[in-house]
Parts: sequence; C-alpha cells; structure tokens
Amino acid sequence: MIAILKPTCTLREKAQLVEFLEQRGFRVHLDRNAEREWVGVLGDGAHALERELAAFGAIEELKQESAPYVRAARGLRGESTVVRLGRIALGGPEVVVMAGPCAVESEEQIFTTAAAVAAAGARMLRGGAYKPRTSPYSFQGLGQEGLELMAAAGKAHDLAIVTEVVAAEDVERVARLADMLQVGARNMQNFRLLEAVGKSGRPVLLKRGLVATLEELLLAAEYVLDAGNPEVILCERGIRTFVRETRNTLDLAAIPLLKEKSHLPVIADPSHGTGVRALVPPLALAAVAAGADGLIVEVHPDPARALSDGMQSLTLEGFSGLMAALDPLARALGRRLAGGSS
Amino acid sequence: MIAILKPTCTLREKAQLVEFLEQRGFRVHLDRNAEREWVGVLGDGAHALERELAAFGAIEELKQESAPYVRAARGLRGESTVVRLGRIALGGPEVVVMAGPCAVESEEQIFTTAAAVAAAGARMLRGGAYKPRTSPYSFQGLGQEGLELMAAAGKAHDLAIVTEVVAAEDVERVARLADMLQVGARNMQNFRLLEAVGKSGRPVLLKRGLVATLEELLLAAEYVLDAGNPEVILCERGIRTFVRETRNTLDLAAIPLLKEKSHLPVIADPSHGTGVRALVPPLALAAVAAGADGLIVEVHPDPARALSDGMQSLTLEGFSGLMAALDPLARALGRRLAGGSS
Amino acid sequence: MIAILKPTCTLREKAQLVEFLEQRGFRVHLDRNAEREWVGVLGDGAHALERELAAFGAIEELKQESAPYVRAARGLRGESTVVRLGRIALGGPEVVVMAGPCAVESEEQIFTTAAAVAAAGARMLRGGAYKPRTSPYSFQGLGQEGLELMAAAGKAHDLAIVTEVVAAEDVERVARLADMLQVGARNMQNFRLLEAVGKSGRPVLLKRGLVATLEELLLAAEYVLDAGNPEVILCERGIRTFVRETRNTLDLAAIPLLKEKSHLPVIADPSHGTGVRALVPPLALAAVAAGADGLIVEVHPDPARALSDGMQSLTLEGFSGLMAALDPLARALGRRLAGGSS
Amino acid sequence: MIAILKPTCTLREKAQLVEFLEQRGFRVHLDRNAEREWVGVLGDGAHALERELAAFGAIEELKQESAPYVRAARGLRGESTVVRLGRIALGGPEVVVMAGPCAVESEEQIFTTAAAVAAAGARMLRGGAYKPRTSPYSFQGLGQEGLELMAAAGKAHDLAIVTEVVAAEDVERVARLADMLQVGARNMQNFRLLEAVGKSGRPVLLKRGLVATLEELLLAAEYVLDAGNPEVILCERGIRTFVRETRNTLDLAAIPLLKEKSHLPVIADPSHGTGVRALVPPLALAAVAAGADGLIVEVHPDPARALSDGMQSLTLEGFSGLMAALDPLARALGRRLAGGSS
Repeated sequence: MIAILKPTCTLREKAQLVEFLEQRGFRVHLDRNAEREWVGVLGDGAHALERELAAFGAIEELKQESAPYVRAARGLRGESTVVRLGRIALGGPEVVVMAGPCAVESEEQIFTTAAAVAAAGARMLRGGAYKPRTSPYSFQGLGQEGLELMAAAGKAHDLAIVTEVVAAEDVERVARLADMLQVGARNMQNFRLLEAVGKSGRPVLLKRGLVATLEELLLAAEYVLDAGNPEVILCERGIRTFVRETRNTLDLAAIPLLKEKSHLPVIADPSHGTGVRALVPPLALAAVAAGADGLIVEVHPDPARALSDGMQSLTLEGFSGLMAALDPLARALGRRLAGGSS
Repeated sequence: MIAILKPTCTLREKAQLVEFLEQRGFRVHLDRNAEREWVGVLGDGAHALERELAAFGAIEELKQESAPYVRAARGLRGESTVVRLGRIALGGPEVVVMAGPCAVESEEQIFTTAAAVAAAGARMLRGGAYKPRTSPYSFQGLGQEGLELMAAAGKAHDLAIVTEVVAAEDVERVARLADMLQVGARNMQNFRLLEAVGKSGRPVLLKRGLVATLEELLLAAEYVLDAGNPEVILCERGIRTFVRETRNTLDLAAIPLLKEKSHLPVIADPSHGTGVRALVPPLALAAVAAGADGLIVEVHPDPARALSDGMQSLTLEGFSGLMAALDPLARALGRRLAGGSS
Repeated sequence: MIAILKPTCTLREKAQLVEFLEQRGFRVHLDRNAEREWVGVLGDGAHALERELAAFGAIEELKQESAPYVRAARGLRGESTVVRLGRIALGGPEVVVMAGPCAVESEEQIFTTAAAVAAAGARMLRGGAYKPRTSPYSFQGLGQEGLELMAAAGKAHDLAIVTEVVAAEDVERVARLADMLQVGARNMQNFRLLEAVGKSGRPVLLKRGLVATLEELLLAAEYVLDAGNPEVILCERGIRTFVRETRNTLDLAAIPLLKEKSHLPVIADPSHGTGVRALVPPLALAAVAAGADGLIVEVHPDPARALSDGMQSLTLEGFSGLMAALDPLARALGRRLAGGSS
Repeated sequence: MIAILKPTCTLREKAQLVEFLEQRGFRVHLDRNAEREWVGVLGDGAHALERELAAFGAIEELKQESAPYVRAARGLRGESTVVRLGRIALGGPEVVVMAGPCAVESEEQIFTTAAAVAAAGARMLRGGAYKPRTSPYSFQGLGQEGLELMAAAGKAHDLAIVTEVVAAEDVERVARLADMLQVGARNMQNFRLLEAVGKSGRPVLLKRGLVATLEELLLAAEYVLDAGNPEVILCERGIRTFVRETRNTLDLAAIPLLKEKSHLPVIADPSHGTGVRALVPPLALAAVAAGADGLIVEVHPDPARALSDGMQSLTLEGFSGLMAALDPLARALGRRLAGGSS
C-alpha cells in the first residue's frame, strides 16, 4: 500500500505517520517524484490499516499498489534509474556492452581479450573468477588470482569490470576489486547473498533465474534495494523450456515488460540465452531492438580451448563483427552504442 | 540418406538407381544445385542399403543426412527459397508485413483495416474467416462470407490475402479466394490438412505449434513439400512455457536456427507471440533484427470491441507507428521494408 | 451462466425461457439431477441477460458458472458418468486396462498380443491402424487392413477394441469396426474431428494435448458432448516440459483435478507418459493410486522389433507382471481390477 | 572413468595408482562392493589417461562411466543406501512420513501438530524456522526460537526433526538442534551451502530445484557426498511447467528414475508438488506407488490462519485420513508404513 501525502504535509505529520506504521509492525519506504511525496507500507496485511489511516489528515490518497516490489516498481516515479560507473551510464540512451570470457583462465587470455573487446567498443570486461559449477569436479575458477588478473586487464584497457560473487562471505573481497558484482541465475533467490551485495556499495548485475517469473526477479532486486543499494541492473539470460536446440530460450518480451514494471536498467545475455555461437549476434541485435540497455557477451580468443562455455563464446573477430552491426542498429533505434564512433 | 551422383551419371543409370530404391520400399527425392545432382532416399532404415548401393558406379558419395526432412533442409542447396506473390517476394532482401484483424467481423471493419494497413506499408492482409476456437460456444468466424469480404478488401487496396484453413475439406474452397493459406499452430500436426494444402497450388504459411520442436515444424513442412507444394513459409508464433506475464514466449532464436537448417522463408507473429498490445512493436523490431523475412501482425480499428484477440491487436495508429520504426531498422540491417519508401 | 428452475416451473414456462434465450443468439443446455432442473446458457456475454432473466418467475436462481465447459463440468450433477461397453464399465469402481501394440503390424503380432493381454486381465485391445506420424516417411500404419485384423483379434479374445481416428472423413469407416474411437494428443484441438466423433455413436477416448491446460482438454470434450455424444473418456498421457530423461512428464495431479472438475471418466497412459519401458509399471501403479479409472498401455511381443514406440512397450511378460501388481493395489484402494480375480 | 582393480591388487599398487592420478590433477574415489574394488577418477578429461593407465598391471578393466556423479551413482554398487536416525530407517522397506507446518509459528501450534502427526504415524516432524521467502517483506520465520520450539516438540513426541538451512553460516547452529538438515529447492545449486551441510555430520534432505534435471540434482548430491557426508536423501517436490491449475507439476517418474540411477533414498513432497490441499492425499498415494521411500507433508492445525502455505496444508484430520489410506497401500506394495500398526 502507498499513502500519497498532501503538499501541505508537515515534517511532524510525516514523522507521526511513520511512527504509527512502525508500531504496527510495518516497514516504511519514503519516496518522491517531481510533484509528490509518498510513504510505501511494506509487509503483509497493510490493507487492514485503511480505516485507521483515514484519520491522518496529511494523507491525500491511499493506493493499493499491486506490485509487491515497492522499491523496484516504476509505480509513481517518472524516471528511469541510470547507474553510473565512471564514464559509463547504464539505463540512459547509450547501449553498454560488457564482454569477456566465461572464466578467467590466464594472464594472456584475459589481457588479449580485454584489448580486443575494448578496441571493438565494449565498455566493461566480464569474466568469472569464482565459478558456480554444476559438478564438483569441474574447473571452479582461479578465485582471487583470477580477480586480480581481471582487474589489471580492465585497468590497462579502461574497462570497468563485472564478475560473479557466489557467497555472502566473498562479497567484501570481490567488491574490493570489481566495479560491479554479478549475482548469477542460480543464486537469484539466495537471499543472504542478495542482502550482502545490497550492502557492498557496488552496483549489482542481477540475472534472472532459469525459471523465475518477472515478479520473482523484481522481488529479488527488492532484497538488494531494501538493503540500501539503489543500483541494480536486471539481466534476461534465457529461461529453461522444452526447447532442445538451444541451451535456454531467451525471453525477449521480458525486456520491455521489465522496463515497464520497473525503473531499473535491463540488459540481455545472448550467450547463455542461446548457448550457440552462431546465434549470439542475431539475438544480441534482437535484444537491443527489444529495448535492452546493454548486453553481456562471452568472448574468448580461442573458444575451442576454453575451459568452460566454449560453444557459446564469440571469437575476437566475431565480437568485432557484432559491434559493427550493432552500431547502425542502435542509431536506427534512436540510441547510441557506448564506445562506438560518434 | 543422400546419394550424390557422379557428373558422368547417365539418365539410364539414374533410372536404375531409382527403380532399385523403390523396389526396396523407399521413396526418392531428386534434387540438384549448380554443381551437383543427388538422390534423397526417404524412409526408415535406408542406411541398411549402404553395401548394395556401393555397387552402383554412378554414385560418387553416400551421405548420412542427419536431418530427416530432406526436402525442407538447406542441406546441399546453396540458395534460399523465395516465395513470390505478384510484386511480393518472401525470403529475399525485403521484409514483408502482413496485417489485419484476428477475425473478419464486418465489411466496414475489414475495409477500414485494409485501407489503413496498406497506407502504412503492409503488403498482405491477414484475417480469419474460419476460426478454430477453444470453446464450441465462442464466435467461430463468418466463414465463406468473411472470406469474400476479405478478398474484396484485399483487391481494393492491392493487398494479397492470407487466411487460415482448418480442415482438409475446406482447402479447395478457401484456395479459390485466398492468395496464401495459413495452417495454424493447433493444426501443425494435422497431417491430412498438410497433405491437402500441399496439393492446393497456393503458398502455405505454416505456424509452429505451441510446443513443437523445430524438427517437428520442419517435418510438418516436409508433408506439404512432399505433397508437391514447394512454397512453404515458416512462422514462429510463440511457445507455451511457465511464463505467465505473456500469452506465449516468442522464441526468437528459432528464426536464425530455422534459416540455417532450412531454405524456406521464416516470419514471426509478435501478436500471438506476446498476447499484449504494448509488447507487439518491440518484439516485432526484435524479430526483424533476429533475421525474420516478414511479420504477421494483428490490427483492429477498435481493439476494445474486437470479437477475439482484442488485447493483442494494434490500433491503426499503433500499426502505423510500428511501420515507421521498422523502416530505418530494416535499412540498418541491410534490408528494406517491402512497401516502404525507397 | 446457469438458470436453476423452481420446482413449480411448468413445461410452458421452460419453453418460453428457451425461446427467449435462443432468440438472443444463445444456445441452451437442459440438465437435471435428483432434486433440481436447470438451463445452461451457452455463448459469450450471457451475463448481460441477467436483468431480463430476473423477470422470469420460473427461475429460482442464476448462477455464474465459472467453468466454460457446461456439459463436461461436474457442476450441479451429483454423479459421475459411467461409460459402458458390454461387460466393461469405465468410471465406476472397476479399474479397466486397455493394452496392445502401438501399431498393428501383422496378424500374428496382434493375435499373439490379444491372447496374452486378455489372459493377464486386460479388457480392451488397443492398437493403431491409422497412425499420425511426425515424419511423412515413417510407417503410417496398415489402415483398413490393420483395423480388420484388430477387430478379429478382439473378437477372438473377448476384448473391446479402441483405435485412433485421425481425420473427420475416416470416422464412419473406423466406427464400423472399433468399439471406442481415440482422438490423439496432436488432434485434441482438431475441432472438425471432435465434431465428427461427436456424431459417431461410439464412446470417445480423448487424449490431452502435449501442452493443453485442463480447461482446454475439457473444452475439447465439450465439442464432442455438444455434438450429441455423452460418452467421453479423458486421458492424461504426459505433457512436454524441460525434462529430458523421459519422453513426456506424466502429470498425475491432472487425474484428481479432472475428476473434481468433470463427471467424465479419466484414465492414464503411462507408456507415452514416460517413453521408457522400465518406468511404465511404477507410473501405472501411481496413476491408479492417484484415482485413474483405467490405463492404456503399450504391449508388444517383441519390442525390439516394433515398427514404432518399441522403447516404451512392455513385453508380454512385463505386462503380466504389471497386472499382478495392480490387483492388490486396486483392492487396497477399495477398487477392483476389471478382469482380475474376484 | 572407473578403474576396476584385479583381486590380486596390492595395497602398494593401489597407492601408486592413486598417486599417479593425483599428480595428473585428478581426484580419486575408492569404493567397493562384495566382489570388487575400484577407483573412480574425478575431473574433466580423464579419458585422456587411458593409454597410460593400460600400463598399470593392477587394473582389470577401465570403464567409461557415463554418470558424472561418481559417488551418487548406483553404478557398480549392489545395494541401496539406508539412512538411519534412531529407530527410523530411510531407504529400506519402510515408508517414512515426515509431517508438520510450513513454518513454526508458536509453541502451541508446533506442539499440537507434533502430537497429532505422531499419533497418526509420522516418524519425523518438519517445520521451517529459517524461511527463504520470495519477498523481503514476508514473514521470515522465527529463527533460533522456532528451532528450539520444534526440537522440544519433537522430543516430547518421539519425532526426529527436519528443518531447512538457508546459508552456510547457519549450518552449525541448526545442526545442533535438528536431526536432519533440509536444503530447499531454491538452494539446490548453492554450492557453498552444499559443502557446508556436507561437513555437518547430519543427514541431508536435498530437494530438487524447480527446473533441475535429475543429473543436476545428483550432481548437487555429489557436492554433499564429496564433502564427506554419505547420508543424502533426495526429494522430488514438483517442477515448474506451463500448468497453472497446480503450483508445480509433481514429476513422479523422477522417483523410479532416481532410484535406478542412484543408491540414495528418494522421497516426495506432495504439498509443494501440488500446492492444493485436496490433491495432497491422491498424490501422496501415487508417490508411494511409484516407489518413494517416504513423504514430507505440510500439516497445520488451522490452515486458514497459517502464516505461509495454508492453501496446501492438510488439517490434522486430513493428515490422519491420509495415513489411514497409506497403510494398506504400502502393504499392497510389499512395504510397510513406518509407525503404522504391524
């Protein structure tokens, strides 16, 4: 429920209202747009308060907000959130591309990749150091060493870095070196991890779970927002369906839907979304045409020898070709490729 | 299995080979590209013939084709099929848009729509006359009367018409007035209907079933091709998944995949693919960015009063806006909107 | 909508009501249970009549029935429908087992199978004569000859026969020899076929489509009922999901749900529902434990040489073992295996 | 890969083999059954060692095991694992029932429930103290207090207790009071948590993720086994599909499949598996008929007032009715209800 305040509402009245709500066991969320200010009432059963709230003269109107994700909802807000990382602005007119290997494997691999993707116009370097793997016997990533290599490669090529964090206890360590923390699809409902990244001071790239509804994704974002971190980027990365020709089914309708329901930036991952190298470029273009604010793409200098996800990684040339195709497409849509010629 | 013939193969040798195969209970499919000629062996268990075929001197090479849809497969063919309907060419560089109401409801409705979509750049008029409906008590379409209205409206505005045919016994009647016959998602595996449209002399728009794999779709196309009709257009129209925010999940990866596996044109239906009006334009753009050769879109002069599918129909203005956005996008992709300014 | 009539309602009043409704373009469905009689109003928009109907003195109460399948709904009816075929009663306390090969392949095959399944306690012989096949090049069944062989085998072993019919134009011919007509999963929404079997005079075994909701299945049944045939048996045969270890996912919750929503008998097909021989017995037992009124099971004297579906066919011994396990299970549930020792 | 040792293999030879494998970067798993002893080689790329291993005289045979979950696989083992908790034996002939509320809400609630389920024949008490909730604003469980209440209620009624643990850092605390630790569906691939429960010294109830394949589930179990804990119980609790009439689709074929692929006990959760109270008893019976070694069922003294999952909770009477129906069913299957009359 949302209580919209009268323009004449005093600070004292607002404080009384908040106190009343908190005494009843609810949490509150204060927000405003250009014209109005309101109080979101968080918790189950808020509608039972309606009668009592009618007695508060400072309330102009009570709204039963249907969305249970009060902070993530576009709702009364007019504007979209823009997440800034240095010269990068995610959620504005620019289309931001993040690229790099599934896993950091060696110094040479990550520096070669960083150089190539920077030259092609990527603004961020992706790469896994702590890898969540389905089997305990698969390559689990280089850990701290991988993180340091990636940070150095990012610095060398003026790329911000984004990497996955898989456990609450790792957040602090990873946040020291990474510019953006990724919460992977398998951890989308690891609520302790969401709370931890919510306190990390770093923007969070939150991937949709393989079988998550959009409401579940937005409620996961709400955990991060509620922990005090307003910078969440949502990522559509494919859902699991009956289809067997692709690793996952990229649900591109999620992009305009999420942008309608929420003020947060939305990007797409055509690499995991298809699992097939040849499908990455057409689906990357499609995602931007559907309204994505950015892309995260797997690129490897030698996909055939990649320790993980080689089948879906673009070569350096393939990535460069994709960027060349993206540039005119973005312009045709009235946007611009961040890092593209201008 | 495919037997590639030597350049020196005589007509007599070819005839002997065909006779041999047919005596063993197989059917054969003769095809060629610029350089070579081959015989496709159709039926289960062809590989058991390998030894005997080795004795045929006219055979250069035996190929175990993995695709069971010999006629629909891109396989050895170099080129894509282009389906022509007057000035329309489906499967070439132009992006062809088909638009119109879910169901023909009245003369005024279909003429108004036809005029508007033609003006906006559509090349074909879609509309249902014989409607397959989930409930026996829902509006079942105007039948023959609807068909005649649509044909008249198409003629008046220089639009080819495409309409669904729901039973083998209706094919002849519908083919008399329609330029293209649609086989709907529910009938994708109605094999008698596929055989009937395969003998209709009209191009066939074949929609993917709600839960069909791409192999099943291509085998359904194979029924039409095998009945003698080489003009089949495939249509991705959304699959049924766990997602509830949209009516279906538009599987855009199917578009580049189908174009890789088959030489047939591929279009998309963002109306059924999403079921939500606001999502039709972004997904239409996305489908073209993913490589679709065309679109089929539901448009209604007054969606709120539509007898079916009003929720997903664009208004006339909405459609016109979509076409204005498609034009620069198609150009950015090196294609052209059929009917667009040039 | 349903109009429940007063006990005092006269025939004349009932006729006036029906006439009124039909003039407004609605169809009506008269039904009754032990205490009451009612009129179902069929068609979209019936609720708009509420005011006018208030003027009819013979109406006791108007009910907005949520189910759109008025004839298939359990609704006001107290009892379940029992479909009788000679000594067989489907939908009562007995559990009826139908068994036989996927396709009739030869006289020897069908007679051997019939003898064995009859000896093990099956009451009906299943087998395909007209087969719907995904590929045009696969074995399409023996057609009329297969039908005659199956009819003879059924007669010889006192088994009623059930076989699939794939097109409206075949219904009359198949109905001459078969005791029960099966509409397969792919044809669940082939509405012309549903209407045709609705006029066949034979009970209809209606299989749930691979991706059909229960409402869609019940509306498909409604087409048959509405065409005048009250004898429909519903069949859960597995849905298509992301799971790859089984051919389909048998949705056993559908069984108690369908029995709650509808008065029609419900059976299960563990052969197509799993696609794996070793899983057929445990899932057959599970289906009966979940409340199934019967089973339809694929059995073949030599599954390794079956022309179709060999992987999921039980051997004759396997079937006999299943029946031996089913008997005590049915008793533990307070039911009885039709044909079992008693 | 598995290297089966000759009966004559000496300890020294075994040690040399292990050393060789570990030097190449593989991990090893020693196991045996009544007749043979073998070494499992864990890690990607083991097949490349084949030639070198041929030089080891102590190896009788190399087997390419297809299952990547070497410890969880039934493989060469003859027997099933039986997990014992006092008088309870999970995985043997008895069917073990765990019952209790979704969340512990109060002392009265948990003691009332414990008394009733014990009287009806349950052997274990389930209940959530640390709850993973989709929304940050929903009731998150009573935490440590809930755990203590549950432990006391279990003790009072001779019920072992099982409760969910949601984060690695909670494992030690929860393991102090709980007899069995549950890893929930959302955390099935929270690998840090799996490692932590693998070191807890408590049996682990591992629930299948909403969209997990059986291979993924068994690899998750492998994480626990690999961390040193041999006592894992697998739980089928429903998967997410297109079906909307039930909360999830209970995939009962998973039960016999898991028992074939693995030696671990398998139980079912018909409460989450359906989400509908009326469907819990028929699906519970079906799960046992399909071969489940036990059930976990939600029971609440007043489901209408439950703080979570009230819709799917049985009443105390409902649970008692289910147990009365289970007893003869288990006997008909040649098993016995643990705690049932004997």
